[in-house]
Amino acid sequence: MTSTTTRPPLNGVDTPTLFATLDAVKASPELAKFQFRAANRWISGTHNRSTIRGFFGAGQEDSTRTDDFTYDADHPAVLVGTGTAPTPVEFLLHAIAACLTAGIVNVAAARGVALREVSSTVEGDIDLLGILGLSKDVRNGYQGIKVSFQIDGDAPDEVLRGIVEQSRARSAVYDVLTNGVPVSIDVATG
Amino acid sequence: MTSTTTRPPLNGVDTPTLFATLDAVKASPELAKFQFRAANRWISGTHNRSTIRGFFGAGQEDSTRTDDFTYDADHPAVLVGTGTAPTPVEFLLHAIAACLTAGIVNVAAARGVALREVSSTVEGDIDLLGILGLSKDVRNGYQGIKVSFQIDGDAPDEVLRGIVEQSRARSAVYDVLTNGVPVSIDVATG
Repeated sequence: MTSTTTRPPLNGVDTPTLFATLDAVKASPELAKFQFRAANRWISGTHNRSTIRGFFGAGQEDSTRTDDFTYDADHPAVLVGTGTAPTPVEFLLHAIAACLTAGIVNVAAARGVALREVSSTVEGDIDLLGILGLSKDVRNGYQGIKVSFQIDGDAPDEVLRGIVEQSRARSAVYDVLTNGVPVSIDVATG
Repeated sequence: MTSTTTRPPLNGVDTPTLFATLDAVKASPELAKFQFRAANRWISGTHNRSTIRGFFGAGQEDSTRTDDFTYDADHPAVLVGTGTAPTPVEFLLHAIAACLTAGIVNVAAARGVALREVSSTVEGDIDLLGILGLSKDVRNGYQGIKVSFQIDGDAPDEVLRGIVEQSRARSAVYDVLTNGVPVSIDVATG
């Protein structure tokens, strides 16, 4: 078995750089402190737009992302929006699928497993009696989220399942969605 | 003061339809059951892509969204990705800003308050010692999220602040992020 420190790039993951990054953070743990950011502006009705670009990490402001990423959100017509973009809650489903998938691919590369396919569907069930203020017994958010992965790779079933489990155990989005996080809201007017 | 049932459209919100929707759901609470969905596919390394289109709600499969919304996610180079899209955790920041903003605009319309500006910045602090597996004492996800709103509208400061507070109290994304939600993960291989 190849030592992890000499594994070649795999699955599009630069595995040597991944291990070198781990070593660098082990030596200087302050490099692990990151801050991500978004800015949002109301357009009309439930339609609004976020821009994402800058972040702090590895001890400095990032300079590699030179263009804004721009994402709209809106409600569909049935929820009195214009349907020009997904709802805010649908972006949570993108986030969990994307985080678990990136983790699966990284873990597989670290374990020397070549992947052929990682695809998933995510379903989020929500009862709008909560946000509509029509029931005190119904929460505002999703009541549950179900992620279904289809994975094909050069390893037995139990190894592939173990890779998914390790991704779950180290997923930032899974942690936030399942355990919650403190959210503070400041308001300036005028 | 205008009765809520006769309020005209405001802030781009079709207020009469909003109140009619509330009345319809009061009469038939099963209309409030929604399911949102996303599908994701791995591209290479930490780069993957979600598509969002169909959802169930108001008693039927939606037929108004006729095109896929497509969103990529990736890690930046410093986290051994290619930086072609934001990280999964950044989409959580878009989601919370978008949800609170849509709520603010709806609540303002329902209360007869004309808005001129709703903008926000969101910061999420995360220590990657968690997801890198380098500390058992550090969580995987954000340690905190801070949302800062700038709001201008035709109402006193305390009324505008009350609108933000009502949006927070009824926000689906705020509920999910602060209280967490059960997430199940199924895996099929081969």
